[in-house]
Amino acid sequence: MKRFLVDKIDGNNVTLTGAEHNHLHNVLRLTEGTEVILNAGDGFDYHAKITKTTKSSTELVILNSTKNLADPKVSVTLFQALTKSDNMSLIVQKCTELGVSKLVPFESKFITAKDKNGKADKLQLVANQSTKQCRRSVPLLVGQTLKFNQMVSKLKDYDLVIFANECEKTMPLNCDISKYKNIAIIVGSEGGFDKDEINAIVNAGGKSVTLGNRILRAETAAISLCAVVMYLMGEWNYEN
Amino acid sequence: MKRFLVDKIDGNNVTLTGAEHNHLHNVLRLTEGTEVILNAGDGFDYHAKITKTTKSSTELVILNSTKNLADPKVSVTLFQALTKSDNMSLIVQKCTELGVSKLVPFESKFITAKDKNGKADKLQLVANQSTKQCRRSVPLLVGQTLKFNQMVSKLKDYDLVIFANECEKTMPLNCDISKYKNIAIIVGSEGGFDKDEINAIVNAGGKSVTLGNRILRAETAAISLCAVVMYLMGEWNYEN
Repeated sequence: MKRFLVDKIDGNNVTLTGAEHNHLHNVLRLTEGTEVILNAGDGFDYHAKITKTTKSSTELVILNSTKNLADPKVSVTLFQALTKSDNMSLIVQKCTELGVSKLVPFESKFITAKDKNGKADKLQLVANQSTKQCRRSVPLLVGQTLKFNQMVSKLKDYDLVIFANECEKTMPLNCDISKYKNIAIIVGSEGGFDKDEINAIVNAGGKSVTLGNRILRAETAAISLCAVVMYLMGEWNYEN
Repeated sequence: MKRFLVDKIDGNNVTLTGAEHNHLHNVLRLTEGTEVILNAGDGFDYHAKITKTTKSSTELVILNSTKNLADPKVSVTLFQALTKSDNMSLIVQKCTELGVSKLVPFESKFITAKDKNGKADKLQLVANQSTKQCRRSVPLLVGQTLKFNQMVSKLKDYDLVIFANECEKTMPLNCDISKYKNIAIIVGSEGGFDKDEINAIVNAGGKSVTLGNRILRAETAAISLCAVVMYLMGEWNYEN
């Protein structure tokens, strides 16, 4: 059943406009009577039926609601140094599927990305699309791009900060992380981090870890570290 | 230091021709006296110096050799149902970085890929490029595309066969897999598997596992499952 994101569900009647209406009406060409699922980011799947669809909007009536089981049970935020635009989209898409709650791009000394504002709006659309595909009800949230020091000042808000540090030669990722509730992951750009940046992250409580002897591309490091963290947090168990 | 793949190292003098010579001479424009690393797939890094480079070939002399530390210590083979071509390239690239030894494409009932021969030669080039980037000496080997039944008949050669089964609602991936030496992973295409195919894999010894409640795209399942398996096998520990 096709899924659509709405801002809010209030009562039994919903009107879809904008991009989601356009997707329903002009791309998928769904018609009156078709049943779909609406997600309002509140942890529920709202089963609804199309009652009217016109050029400008679609009217739906809600039939019932069930708890969404695909939303992550843990809170993981990826702080990602700006990579090239295509890689940033790939990271957002894969991290949404993996159950990451928030992705915050940040600037660092050696970033090569030309567009430093990180195109949060465009990345949020990628996240929204991936949210529907993987059947979450709450989208991954793409934050505004932070300066390096702003990113570091946020780290105190987390129980555990895992820092993928290419200079780390000793500590692997500890598999015993399921006791934490609110985890941050930090991954660098294609250019890596400056020595002072590494020190700043570690001094702010970042647990420096190695991902082994192979040099991973920035997007590979982000996707595979998020996959392993989610696995260790029990997010690969199936809930009926 | 730039890396180049050669078929064989025999004595102290090496001649580079074909694609690797072209990359050195015409793309990177390296000149006489430049030091590079040669890999012949034997677990060593051969440090060499360019002695002569012409339009058709490059001559090098080997200075010394050291053990390559980026090659995987475990043997993992990914049997991947044919996905769309771009996704297949993405899987090969990422799995090379993650330390997978071999990738074998196979046909299944619901594949949508138009090109059923899987373009093994093109995928091997992706693997070779990624091998150099992540600093392995032995490339990931891309096998010829198998029929479904041929794939199933190969499974008896492995200590453990992990089968990412979207219909599995009970068993998660067991974290205690480091005792195995020779592991196979099976991941489906965008279209998933037919019920008979699922039964055939399980009957041949495939351990059906769930990756959780979120629906993962085929390439996300492949990359993230390989990442988790490599982590559990100790491949994210750093070796000095």
